[in-house]
Formats: sequence, structure tokens, C-alpha cells
Amino acid sequence: MDEKEVPSLAEIHIAASHLRSMSLPITPILTSSILNTLTGRNIYLKCENFQRTGSFKSRGALNAVLNAMKIDPNLKGFVTHSSGNHGQALSYAASIVKRPCVVVVPRGTPKNKTDAIEHYGAELVICEPTPASRTSTCLQISQERDFLIIPPFDHPDVIAGQGTIAVELLEQVPDLDAILVPVSGGGLISGIALYAKRINPNIRIFACTPEGKMLEECLNKQERLWPEPPQFLNTKCEACRLQQCGSLTFPIMCSLVEKQVFTVSDKTMIDATRFAFERLKLVVELAAGLSLGAIISQSDRLDSNIRNIALILCGGNIDLNEKLPWQQ
Amino acid sequence: MDEKEVPSLAEIHIAASHLRSMSLPITPILTSSILNTLTGRNIYLKCENFQRTGSFKSRGALNAVLNAMKIDPNLKGFVTHSSGNHGQALSYAASIVKRPCVVVVPRGTPKNKTDAIEHYGAELVICEPTPASRTSTCLQISQERDFLIIPPFDHPDVIAGQGTIAVELLEQVPDLDAILVPVSGGGLISGIALYAKRINPNIRIFACTPEGKMLEECLNKQERLWPEPPQFLNTKCEACRLQQCGSLTFPIMCSLVEKQVFTVSDKTMIDATRFAFERLKLVVELAAGLSLGAIISQSDRLDSNIRNIALILCGGNIDLNEKLPWQQ
Repeated sequence: MDEKEVPSLAEIHIAASHLRSMSLPITPILTSSILNTLTGRNIYLKCENFQRTGSFKSRGALNAVLNAMKIDPNLKGFVTHSSGNHGQALSYAASIVKRPCVVVVPRGTPKNKTDAIEHYGAELVICEPTPASRTSTCLQISQERDFLIIPPFDHPDVIAGQGTIAVELLEQVPDLDAILVPVSGGGLISGIALYAKRINPNIRIFACTPEGKMLEECLNKQERLWPEPPQFLNTKCEACRLQQCGSLTFPIMCSLVEKQVFTVSDKTMIDATRFAFERLKLVVELAAGLSLGAIISQSDRLDSNIRNIALILCGGNIDLNEKLPWQQ
Repeated sequence: MDEKEVPSLAEIHIAASHLRSMSLPITPILTSSILNTLTGRNIYLKCENFQRTGSFKSRGALNAVLNAMKIDPNLKGFVTHSSGNHGQALSYAASIVKRPCVVVVPRGTPKNKTDAIEHYGAELVICEPTPASRTSTCLQISQERDFLIIPPFDHPDVIAGQGTIAVELLEQVPDLDAILVPVSGGGLISGIALYAKRINPNIRIFACTPEGKMLEECLNKQERLWPEPPQFLNTKCEACRLQQCGSLTFPIMCSLVEKQVFTVSDKTMIDATRFAFERLKLVVELAAGLSLGAIISQSDRLDSNIRNIALILCGGNIDLNEKLPWQQ
């Protein structure tokens, strides 16, 4: 990892204070005796499902937007491509700084998702459902309208924004031994690792992924073994469908994240999501079920001296109009 | 209200310390900027959906069981009739003191409910689905096995247990102006009112009920106007189906609870439950949607000087195997 390319400790601290000044809430920590009993550890749930727009993504998007506005107060607007949480988050962040926002979504995106993006005021532009069409449409709008592109994870300010979770976490939970983080592009785990490992190098940061991610092999070889062009995983967890991590996030992960990766089947993820609803009384999305499923099903893989573990419940945007995942 | 019949402040304090010594959690307070904006007030959600067994009922049941064991350490067991949260709560409480427990449930009670009761170790006895059969079966088991009956609300120790919510609430939220409480038999609101009004007589306690409850008329006339034998309301909110309040709880309510009652339609209750899932990311049952629906739909009925309002989200035991209420 090239220290020049990644957010410094100071930048993450500044991000935290910026987000606080914009009234982004400090999300609470919840605990559950049943979860502690099941895992034989002390589990601390960092409830990013309670975060504005229903996921941690509002941290990174808002931090990126605020920093961009500081550099150029005359910025005309923002654009990204996302059918999910980052789209909602950027729509929200742009509304905070009173700038227009375009979110490019692939044809066929469910209405509940496009509604959520439009809710915060963004304009939707429909593209073909291919990675190439998403990128080119986004670029075209950026050029035509002179809007700044805010990518979902591979951006220092986005990473610094996600890192503010760790600023809160280390204040909320003393003596933390490990943090389990769901991974897609890697922005969330990079931000958390950059902050937590610099404050306390003994904290261990574990990635949780769907099957087929190949992350453990990549981390062990410190090499991008993923096939090109970028592939999508065969998982019901839409937020973690991307196989590759980012070109900025992967080196950070290589230097700061444990080589041991928790790979979780869709069944385990869905069971854990159900557990969150039924026993924890929390509405979470499948990506949050990923880290929960990892600790419930594989806690015996962790060293016995790892006692205090934080789980990032990354979001709560699950479709409540349709059957729940375990009913399907 | 006859002060001799009702729990004293000291008894509620003792209940709180007993429950703490048995590791019953202090439930958190959550806040929501969207809820504050919608209502124009500061809303504090007391999350009893996170309480053990998924509802506040474990407080009253455990306090009653602990007190009974103190009076007679040789008690053989406990019995009640309930198809819902009190059945689960007593099953749990009896397991804590390692005593057998029988829960009488009417024929036709859904399997998810009987499973939840059995989960904590109680034996189920099926009776006919009539109030008379429930009472007589319960009495018969009590006599045959020498088990103590713990009623769902009309019992001083149960009321004192529910009052421990207010002990926590007044520590967690300073400057509270009002508390909105869903009402069925009245144990929850009685316990909360007994504590809160004695600590701060200016706090106003409001009842929230389904339609047809007749509570406002009864409170205004200070008279039990309810038809006999006890009727059930035509509401989807199973936890609040009983029309009458108790003979112990009603006088408490007459002296301490506001005459102005929030009556909530099933539609408003279901909409509010959906709001809790979708926006607050909380799994709550319809009875919790009752107090939430009251404040969302009728906050303009409250004096403008009532700024800081606690809502009791009384439980989270909703059937997650079936369609959610708004999908039906």
C-alpha cells in the first residue's frame, strides 16, 4: 500500500468531524446475550442499518461530496452508477450540499430501489445492464453536464468516510480484539482497517465474503488473481456481487487485513439474516447477514484469545414488499 | 386507587435491582431524525422489542416469580393462560428459577407461538378457545399440581416489574414530558405511571389503544363501562385484543393516566409497523405500531409544550414465517 494514496489518520478524523457537523448519527452498538452464548465471545453489533439512507454508504458519499465542494464550491453536480446503497447515499449527500445528482441504474432495477434513490432527489438515468454500459453512461453524463463522478469505493474520500465507523467503534467498545467486515469492493474494510490498525495494531480485521470471491487466495499471494473483465458472483447478496476488490482498496487490504477470510454460503447468510430479524429484532440486509453468519457458523476458527468482536451490520435495505429471503 | 394494593416506589426500585441481578438487559433508547421531523417533537424509542423473550412481559413475569420464590422457596411450579408474550415470559421466568411451568393455550394457537413458549421449557396444555375454558383449565392445573398462577397484568408484582421500564427511562432521557404506552390489560401503563408520576408529577402518561376499547369514556367517568362478560376487540393487534382493563390496573390508570386517549385504527397501526421496519430498521409487533401510529398520526393533539416524548415499543414478536401485515 502506498501511504500517499490512502487516507491518513488525520483525514479520517476530519471526515468524522465533518460528518458529525452534518448531523450524521453516531450509530449505536447493540449486544445480545444469545449471540454471545452461541459464539462464546462478546459480540458488539455496529448498527449501520440505522445509518442515514439505511447503510454505511452515506458516510463515504457525504465525505466525498463535502470534500469536493470545499475544493470547488462551484461544483455543478454529482453522478455515479449504482442500483443500490451507494446510489441512495450519493443522492442523499448531494441533497445536503444542494447540488443536482444523477444516478445511472441498469434497466430492470426493481422499483423499490429506484424509488429509494429518487426519494433523496437524484435524477435516474437508465442504462443497459452491463458493466460497460454503466461506466460509459456515467462518464458521458459527467462530461455533458460537468458533474463530478463519485465512485462507490475506490476513492480516498469515500474510504476515509467509511473509516469513521472505526473512529466511533474504538470509542464505543474498549478492548476490541477483532472486527468482522463484509467485503464487496473493499471500501468499508479499507477505511475501518486504516483507522483501527493505526490506533491499535493488535486489532485484527477479518473480511467476510460470499462464496467464489477468491479473496483469501488473493490476500495470501498479495496478487489480483481475479479474472478480467470483472465478474459477478452467483449470490443472493446483491450488495456483494462484485468479485474484484478495487485497485486502491486491495493494496490496503493486503497490508492490513487478516489473510484468513470468512467465506459464507448464501444459506448461512440467509439463516443469519433471519436470526437478526427473529432474535435480535433488527431489520438487516443480506450483506449484514454475511458477517453475522460468519461469526455464528465459524467462530471456532478464531483464536481463543479473540474475545471482544465487533460485527459491522452494514445496512438494512431489504425489500419488505416481497417475501423475505427465507420465505423464498 | 388504594395505595395499599399497588406497588410502592420502593417495590419498583427493588424489582429493578432484582431484574438487573438476573441479567435482564436495560433496553436501549433509539432516536430517529425522520420521526422527530414527522412529529415536530423529540421522540425517544424505548426498545422493549430487544427485551428478553422479545417483549416487556419478561420484566413482570420474572419479578413475580422471584418474589414468589422468596416467600416460598419450595414452590413447586407456575402456571398461566396465554397464547402470547406473557406465556413466553412466564416460561422464561420459571426456567430462571428452575421450576416447571405450564402455559394453557387455546386450541388453534399458531405453531410459531407455541414453539416460542416451549422454547423456554414450559409444558403446553391445550384448552377450548373460550375465556371460561382458559380460566378453568388454568385453575385446575394450579390445584392438581400445586402450581402458583401468575396472571398477565392484574398482579402487584407484575405491575412493579413493568414499572422498571420507567426506572430506566427516567435515567436515560432527561426532561421527559410525556410517555405514550400501548394498553391492553393495563399492567404496562400502570407500572410506568406509578413510577414516573411519583418521581415527576409533571410527566404525562398517555394510553394508546385499538378502536372500540372505550378507554377514554371509562377514564373520564372513572367507571368500568365495559360490557360483561369481557369482550375481545375486532383488531389485528392480538396483544391488545382484550377490551377491559384489570380491576387492579384500572383504578391506577384513573388516578395517574391522562384522560385523553390515543385511539388508533388497524390501518394506522399497520402503517406504523411498516414504518418501523422500513425506516427505523426495527422489528416490532403491531402493539408497538400502536404507540408509533398514535404519535405519527395524532401528534397535533398534544400540547405544544410537550417536547420530549418516550414511546414504548413494547415488543417485537411478529410472525416472520408469514406475510408481513402490510402484505396481507
